[in-house]
Amino acid sequence: MNCLPFFIVILHLTNTQNVDSVWTWTCKNQSCEKVRVQPESKPISLAACKISCDPYGTLWPQPTGRVELGGELVPVDPNNIEINENGNENKLVRAGYRHFQTNLQKLGKGAEDQSGKGAKLIVTVKIEDPSQMQLRLTTNESYSLRVSQSSTGSINADIMAPTYFGGRHGLETLGQLIIYDDILNNLQIPNDVYITDGPVYPYRGVLLDTARNYISVDTIKRTIDGISASKLNTFHWHITDSQSFPYVSRSNPDLSRLGAYSPRDVYTPDDVQDVIEYAHERGVRVLPEFDAPAHVGEGWQDTDFVACFNSQPWGQYCVEPPCGQFDPTKPKLYDALEGIYKDMVRQFNPDIFHMGGDEVSISCWNSTYSIVKWMADRGWGTTEEDFIKLWNHFQTQALERFDKHTKEKLPIIMWTSTLTKKEYVEKYLPKDRYIIQVWTAKNDPEIFELLKKGYRLILSNYDALYLDCGYASWVGEGTNWCTPYKGWQSIYNNSPYIYNNANQFLGAEAALWTEQVDDTAVDNRIWPRAAALGERLWAEPAHTWREAENRMLVHRQRLVNRGIAADALEPRWCLQNENNCPT
Amino acid sequence: MNCLPFFIVILHLTNTQNVDSVWTWTCKNQSCEKVRVQPESKPISLAACKISCDPYGTLWPQPTGRVELGGELVPVDPNNIEINENGNENKLVRAGYRHFQTNLQKLGKGAEDQSGKGAKLIVTVKIEDPSQMQLRLTTNESYSLRVSQSSTGSINADIMAPTYFGGRHGLETLGQLIIYDDILNNLQIPNDVYITDGPVYPYRGVLLDTARNYISVDTIKRTIDGISASKLNTFHWHITDSQSFPYVSRSNPDLSRLGAYSPRDVYTPDDVQDVIEYAHERGVRVLPEFDAPAHVGEGWQDTDFVACFNSQPWGQYCVEPPCGQFDPTKPKLYDALEGIYKDMVRQFNPDIFHMGGDEVSISCWNSTYSIVKWMADRGWGTTEEDFIKLWNHFQTQALERFDKHTKEKLPIIMWTSTLTKKEYVEKYLPKDRYIIQVWTAKNDPEIFELLKKGYRLILSNYDALYLDCGYASWVGEGTNWCTPYKGWQSIYNNSPYIYNNANQFLGAEAALWTEQVDDTAVDNRIWPRAAALGERLWAEPAHTWREAENRMLVHRQRLVNRGIAADALEPRWCLQNENNCPT
Repeated sequence: MNCLPFFIVILHLTNTQNVDSVWTWTCKNQSCEKVRVQPESKPISLAACKISCDPYGTLWPQPTGRVELGGELVPVDPNNIEINENGNENKLVRAGYRHFQTNLQKLGKGAEDQSGKGAKLIVTVKIEDPSQMQLRLTTNESYSLRVSQSSTGSINADIMAPTYFGGRHGLETLGQLIIYDDILNNLQIPNDVYITDGPVYPYRGVLLDTARNYISVDTIKRTIDGISASKLNTFHWHITDSQSFPYVSRSNPDLSRLGAYSPRDVYTPDDVQDVIEYAHERGVRVLPEFDAPAHVGEGWQDTDFVACFNSQPWGQYCVEPPCGQFDPTKPKLYDALEGIYKDMVRQFNPDIFHMGGDEVSISCWNSTYSIVKWMADRGWGTTEEDFIKLWNHFQTQALERFDKHTKEKLPIIMWTSTLTKKEYVEKYLPKDRYIIQVWTAKNDPEIFELLKKGYRLILSNYDALYLDCGYASWVGEGTNWCTPYKGWQSIYNNSPYIYNNANQFLGAEAALWTEQVDDTAVDNRIWPRAAALGERLWAEPAHTWREAENRMLVHRQRLVNRGIAADALEPRWCLQNENNCPT
Repeated sequence: MNCLPFFIVILHLTNTQNVDSVWTWTCKNQSCEKVRVQPESKPISLAACKISCDPYGTLWPQPTGRVELGGELVPVDPNNIEINENGNENKLVRAGYRHFQTNLQKLGKGAEDQSGKGAKLIVTVKIEDPSQMQLRLTTNESYSLRVSQSSTGSINADIMAPTYFGGRHGLETLGQLIIYDDILNNLQIPNDVYITDGPVYPYRGVLLDTARNYISVDTIKRTIDGISASKLNTFHWHITDSQSFPYVSRSNPDLSRLGAYSPRDVYTPDDVQDVIEYAHERGVRVLPEFDAPAHVGEGWQDTDFVACFNSQPWGQYCVEPPCGQFDPTKPKLYDALEGIYKDMVRQFNPDIFHMGGDEVSISCWNSTYSIVKWMADRGWGTTEEDFIKLWNHFQTQALERFDKHTKEKLPIIMWTSTLTKKEYVEKYLPKDRYIIQVWTAKNDPEIFELLKKGYRLILSNYDALYLDCGYASWVGEGTNWCTPYKGWQSIYNNSPYIYNNANQFLGAEAALWTEQVDDTAVDNRIWPRAAALGERLWAEPAHTWREAENRMLVHRQRLVNRGIAADALEPRWCLQNENNCPT
């Protein structure tokens, strides 16, 4: 039986008829109350109530600067949008306009017969420095947005931003200000808005593993849609692992020929290019990870570079089947790695690179005769320290080979591991070069050590940010290792601010490891939970999830409306009856 | 913001080109081993290996009688199927043939260019008593299947069954015997097969709640597809609850007008008819539940029939918001109920009916002045026993009204509750009339009491069969009440055989309550887990899940192939490398 590629297409069909309403919503104490429609009175839709009632409307994430949502709701015509070219458009800006309009068309699908009945919308995006075409950790992603109504009735939406990456956030906000009113069956926008906004953290990521199970390019694109709708900015592509090698390497096509689940389950150079462009236009960095020296296996069968591949019982040599770990003593390994690095640098043009370093097993190396002999020949023993030296031998050479292909020395991310323990980290991983991605539990003392030593960190503590937790075990009975399931509430409440030196955090990342998920459920595993991280990292709000709950329920609907199969969080009754559900 | 209906369409696109294979599978000790293709040798696909290697092939559920899977694999042409009419076809049998062909077309999608290259398939289904048009607890669902090859090369598949409901299981088995070979890019079938088969339990159900969140008719139909693919036979439709009333009652259309989440989120009489016919053709009973006296609320706003609707703090009066419970003292309530019962009996023509009886709150009734007064007027106190008398007053009258509309007295299902406790159950719920659906934990002493008293039971113990468990809480923080997530393994191992008097179990049912799920994720919450229950109830195998694991992974692929977004259970590596993943 073969796992064939498929696509999930969510068609958003709405009844386009205006309907008799029984219920209406009125704003009381900043929340919308459901009441009976009174004779002769005009019913107000839930969407219309919400955008006017909460001080943050239904924006997600909550803006960090001034938020003035005023005036009145005015119908707008999604088919009458004027893009006000102002001479500094480039390919990116034009793409941003296009995606704004596409999202609006999805929202307005039920409102098409209103065409010509709403105001014209004139959108202007002014980018101060349109030459900044690459998202970097130093990129200014802020923007300001002004919505006003002209004397002729048309709506002007003016966005100003230092870079395109801020400008597109402004367009996202503008899109969120336009609501679909299911009673009047039209689109509406508040006609007096002023917002200034920008993120707290520069790195706001979602990791997707495409090696434990193959994930189609379409699903990857939907993931990027969600990232951009939630003002996250990084798609971390964990593209290979010991189970499969779907990445088609130009320098070594045998890796995917042998290592992909099937000849169809690969990412060709065109696929990769497609994903990178798709993300770039949406303000999203694609961060490639080539995890090494562990987490390798399939694909390398025609080499002698991998130790203990599929050794059994696997529990002795690795954390999940099949085992596999590069043998650092093989000189030709580094030529092969250089080929992959070169391929990736050329394709991704990365501003940061992820070298993995996750879960290296000393027992795997220690059980391999030729490795232990190589070490003995150098007078090394077989203590942890000796194997860390071996690992350093690998990492140093791998990095040298990587550096040959970039113009400048790029920041390198590595997972927390034995190598990042306090006794080794400074010796082997210079803090001006390496960023550490923390995946252990949030109270792990190693995190505090790394902070004390001055490392820059990315927070991916599994006890809040691992989206694969809480399901059944797949190797035995019971639940999987990181049970329980991480609700959006704990993700929302999980902040770098719990640590001193929170400013050493570049940001955080939610991770979906795909041992137990493929195309059929990637959307609902990631969304809307990763959007909770989006608000945490964008706004670092002082409040907890409860204050964000009503907006979150709306944002989930927004994601679904855009074709992302985000999970339902609550009975819809709680959305329609604000604040009646909490204990 | 409005929850608009949408459809998930899974398009199964496959590359139709024959591909160079690097890997082949060979059968060793009843399992398929992945090895390199040798020069000059013909590679064997995983699907081809599996169907020949395991004594049960890749059938799900495992047949219970003789299983002879022999001969050799022969290519068949999905576009050259002859249905051998034998004079006893009726609408149902013709539908069965049609659905068999549709499923084959989906499987053969990648093989279309092979048209004309495989053998002709001649299918004959002989139904001994085609006049048995309704599935009942006494229906004989057995069948026998013979596949052979004629001298002209065509494949004959002959199914014999006492009823259509057995015959369609035979067609399902036949469909599962045909595999898609992704190396040769064609469909193949073993040319010498003899199977006799039939289920152990007569009631094999999946419950879907369509009231906590609205579930589209398309999603309901996909759920029925999965039920029929897994030889389950009951779709239990929990169609209303306190949060919403999507069922359009002919006798009282105000209930859905007021109580549906929106005018679009309803089940019209046509929708209901559509679902019933869809299920019937696939051998599936639609069991309607009208849960009362608790679990009511929305929709009844224009009556005085509901006590403590949306009382706050809800935790004092019910188990989740909004509270709501019929007031048994209102005489006109029973007229309203009779209208709904009449509507449902006419539409569903049920062989069993579910009256709910779930989670009645004594404190709700006790906090309602008019109820307590009514009781006092009759000299009743306010002990538990008194409120049970009140409940009996409700149940007796409700049942009387129900019985007015059926030709014979139908079996009535009720959930375990205070009323089914050992001190009340025999007094109020005669065992020749009532079937008890058990939802408490499997070691609950009440289950043993009910068995001892001789009740017929349906097993839905939440600690194995509740598919909504293990997610986040939705009213507060932490995990939901019935955490952890129930893996397919614990569902598979959960058998009525753990009890004495297991023969009092009519079967079992997996339940998806939808507080935290709607159309975007119903498929992957239910599937493939409910299929594990399918095999348990069909075959009551002596082995545990481990022996079924390889077939389960294939069945999951089968469901996906048919358009059901079933969850992935393991890395695909475990499917391709049998028995290398277990601890």
